[in-house]
Amino acid sequence: MPYRAPVEEFNFLFSHVVKLEDVVATERFADATPDMVTAILNEAGRMCEEVLAPLQRNGDLHPAKLENGVVRTSPGFDEGYKAIAEGGWVSISASQENGGMGLPMAVTTAVNEMMSSACLSLQLNPLMTQGQIEALENHASDAIRETYLPKLISGEWSGTMNLTEAQAGSDVGALRTRAEPNDDGSYAITGQKIYISWGDNDFTENVCHLVLARLPDSVPGTKGISLFLVPKYIPDENGAPGKANDLKVVSLEHKMGLHGSPTAVMQYDGAQGWLIGEENDGMRCMFTMMNNARLGVGVQGIGTAEGALQHAMAYAQDRTQGKTPLENGTGTIMDHADVRRMLTTMKAETAAARAIALANAVAIDMAHATGEADWAARAAFLTPITKAFGTETGANVSDLGIQVHGGMGYIEETGAAQYARDVRVTAIYEGTNGIQSMDLAGRKLMDGGEAAYALLDEIERHAEGARATLPDLAEPVWNATESLREATEWMVSQKNVTDRFAGSVPFLRAWARVLGAHFHLCAAQAEGGEGKRTRLARFYIQRLLPEHTAQLAHATAGSEDLYALTPDDLVA
Amino acid sequence: MPYRAPVEEFNFLFSHVVKLEDVVATERFADATPDMVTAILNEAGRMCEEVLAPLQRNGDLHPAKLENGVVRTSPGFDEGYKAIAEGGWVSISASQENGGMGLPMAVTTAVNEMMSSACLSLQLNPLMTQGQIEALENHASDAIRETYLPKLISGEWSGTMNLTEAQAGSDVGALRTRAEPNDDGSYAITGQKIYISWGDNDFTENVCHLVLARLPDSVPGTKGISLFLVPKYIPDENGAPGKANDLKVVSLEHKMGLHGSPTAVMQYDGAQGWLIGEENDGMRCMFTMMNNARLGVGVQGIGTAEGALQHAMAYAQDRTQGKTPLENGTGTIMDHADVRRMLTTMKAETAAARAIALANAVAIDMAHATGEADWAARAAFLTPITKAFGTETGANVSDLGIQVHGGMGYIEETGAAQYARDVRVTAIYEGTNGIQSMDLAGRKLMDGGEAAYALLDEIERHAEGARATLPDLAEPVWNATESLREATEWMVSQKNVTDRFAGSVPFLRAWARVLGAHFHLCAAQAEGGEGKRTRLARFYIQRLLPEHTAQLAHATAGSEDLYALTPDDLVA
Repeated sequence: MPYRAPVEEFNFLFSHVVKLEDVVATERFADATPDMVTAILNEAGRMCEEVLAPLQRNGDLHPAKLENGVVRTSPGFDEGYKAIAEGGWVSISASQENGGMGLPMAVTTAVNEMMSSACLSLQLNPLMTQGQIEALENHASDAIRETYLPKLISGEWSGTMNLTEAQAGSDVGALRTRAEPNDDGSYAITGQKIYISWGDNDFTENVCHLVLARLPDSVPGTKGISLFLVPKYIPDENGAPGKANDLKVVSLEHKMGLHGSPTAVMQYDGAQGWLIGEENDGMRCMFTMMNNARLGVGVQGIGTAEGALQHAMAYAQDRTQGKTPLENGTGTIMDHADVRRMLTTMKAETAAARAIALANAVAIDMAHATGEADWAARAAFLTPITKAFGTETGANVSDLGIQVHGGMGYIEETGAAQYARDVRVTAIYEGTNGIQSMDLAGRKLMDGGEAAYALLDEIERHAEGARATLPDLAEPVWNATESLREATEWMVSQKNVTDRFAGSVPFLRAWARVLGAHFHLCAAQAEGGEGKRTRLARFYIQRLLPEHTAQLAHATAGSEDLYALTPDDLVA
Repeated sequence: MPYRAPVEEFNFLFSHVVKLEDVVATERFADATPDMVTAILNEAGRMCEEVLAPLQRNGDLHPAKLENGVVRTSPGFDEGYKAIAEGGWVSISASQENGGMGLPMAVTTAVNEMMSSACLSLQLNPLMTQGQIEALENHASDAIRETYLPKLISGEWSGTMNLTEAQAGSDVGALRTRAEPNDDGSYAITGQKIYISWGDNDFTENVCHLVLARLPDSVPGTKGISLFLVPKYIPDENGAPGKANDLKVVSLEHKMGLHGSPTAVMQYDGAQGWLIGEENDGMRCMFTMMNNARLGVGVQGIGTAEGALQHAMAYAQDRTQGKTPLENGTGTIMDHADVRRMLTTMKAETAAARAIALANAVAIDMAHATGEADWAARAAFLTPITKAFGTETGANVSDLGIQVHGGMGYIEETGAAQYARDVRVTAIYEGTNGIQSMDLAGRKLMDGGEAAYALLDEIERHAEGARATLPDLAEPVWNATESLREATEWMVSQKNVTDRFAGSVPFLRAWARVLGAHFHLCAAQAEGGEGKRTRLARFYIQRLLPEHTAQLAHATAGSEDLYALTPDDLVA
């Protein structure tokens, strides 16, 4: 699958749309000069083009498998992973003291997107490690950090997240895995975890599992959960992988896609683990990792969308079929209006989702650099939107990519279908998109809507500024923002959480529509109202933004009519 | 995959929504009394539940394969096919003189839907035969009809459609397969055809291919195409399969889904064929089969949606996860508002698509029975909508089905993903949904909008009639219909076909939204404005119908802005 890293696009967004300059102006990220960022994007982009993209089909055709208890990964993944680790791409944002680059999350986000486009199943491995690094940096003891962080940051070791159990999925609080104190301050972990992405591999020296478990006598629910680091091999006195721990991969799942990524059932039989953070504070610690991973998973969707777009463009520019009345046409299916509609939709959606994700990353960076609560609130507000809209964009764009290919899209060797099958899980894992939307309409409005209104104010201010030069774009953006404000006020005013949740998915989608329009408008304005980004903004604002009306009607319809339909009504 | 045939639903729709009584009132279909129809639905439904549904996973797990030039079908498909043939379910609407039941297409449509829910990949086989029967009944010589129809109608032989070649997909006119006259009045067919569904099998005695080809000196394009019947085995003087014809299956495709249905590359090397219809009139003859098949493929989508809905309902009613504030809850994930939203959307969309398909079938039956051009125009207008909306509903509903399952949805053994993978091709084959929408906005408006306006008038009249009793439902339906009328007028007035085609997909979707709302309103009214169908209509009209606004904005945006974006603009 040929892939071309969209470095120019990232540079444009950083310069004109999401304002990386504000991040670079902070002391913490002063190193992230435009030259430095461009150099990193070029180097990582080249690695994605040359090393990772050729592996994409391997993962699908030769899935990771379990042989005699050992995971064998897909052909070439070993070398691909080494290229990621040696380039330092696992740890762009990890602290410098342990070998990371200490650069903004915005840069990590761009590189993660490129790796996702090139080979999603392999990219999931360092994505998990990135989250673990952040969790350990924030919550682990000095001893743990000294032992583990250099190895994780260098990519010699990899990390996983262990939350789910058969009876505890979205309801993490229902988990039963037990942790019993050992005499030496460590804990014995016993239980079974499912859906563990990259639960094992054959190319890192060690695999470090962050495992949620219950201490004896802990209270039920999420308040009785603690977090433990449980390595596959227990580090010896020199910090090298030593004795094998009492854990194993029981089986790998047979999935719809992402076959290159082994999804494991993990069994812990009194495995030795170390507490991360305080006792019974595991959910909070894990959320550090999960928030990082939620942004990262949204970006997986965006990367897939970019890959599917490029793949479909290559096909459309080559395939001749049918005649059009178009003057100066290319003679390919690109000339057909409906093919053009599909490809332009793919482009416009991908651009919108990318800008949202980068703005999210910039907010995280500003929060880290300034310590300001407003930035943290902005980041927290955008995270579920990035995750859900990024992954839906991945699914929708790759589905359009199949359709652009016509009959060939359904034939696996074309590669178009793989994008759709691979990306489908991203709408499910790291909290389903339903959970994301409940987070947005529930927890993220618990400030009375303060973070939401601040963002709406900013969008309206910008639209007002653009009104003189780009009235046909600025007006609809301003109007849509007002509608979204009303719906947000409605949400905030609902005391019954069920009324919020009945419309939370369309509510999140409307937010994404408006944010996407805002960033398209920013791009058009930065371009001086003339150029390809302005043309793309016009397409998005005229043809896609109007969807917010129906989304908001659905969002604010309440739950009464919904629950008036009984389960029996829904059965045939 | 357990499946329960929705016979009660069909009976309700026939009695109250699509008015089968008008069909039964004609001389031609006087036999199709409600008792007769119910008996057929019950019997066919039982076969689907007991014989076909258990085969669904077999097709996925054990794909049809080519061994030494012979197609080996999935385990149990042989017996499954025999049950279909022996029940007479291939030929419910075939003429009685050759062994068919001579019943309305509306009944065929209901049975086709049930077979699609139960085992889509196998159902595709008799669907192709149904189209072939109709094509031969309308266009073949007496001799051909006498030889072939009894065998096809009994299901002893099966039929295929051979249109596509590597360079001729949507652009059928570009095909190159040659037909040269033999001395005996038959023709020698030479060429390669691709994407031939059920190009061969190991359970019918013969496979009859309808092949589009060019006579020597034919004009280029679609006007130089003729239709030929090319059997795998040439019937001997007794009409039994005789000498093997000069044709073969070259290979089978490795597809995203529908693995139980062998998709063949067919090679014809001077194979003996017989002209169907007139020379150079092949496209018209094939369209008889294609229009039948387009309705049938739309129904495949609807059947898949029903299957996915039942599958997800079974899971949701069993799975416990998380707590809700709901009083009198079931304790399962059914209680969660967002799960309820997904399942209700699945139900409402499936019901809308089903009513559209049955109304389409009723229009076909009325056209056949009365010979009235208005009914034929109604049928022709609805066909692309049934095809595209039915298949999009199949895809969207099965995608929601995956999401309802959470992590389990991505695991193949659950079965949820198979619905989505299997149904994906239905949006592509028998004319992509893009082609359907161009047909709607182009050819189907060439009457100056007469058929469209007649339908809009009918919807508005009905909404006016419902205004007194169900104002909250009737008003939005009436208003939406007016908006759709304006957009239809806009379409009709566009001289530049590219302006129509730039918005044809959203135009078709808006038609489906409004038609769906209309039929939901009909159901609510028939129920006396109280009951499960009224509750479902309220959900659809309040939450889904508003989408038509954005669809119509997109539909009427023209092509200028779209083409302002060059192919280079769309590249990274």
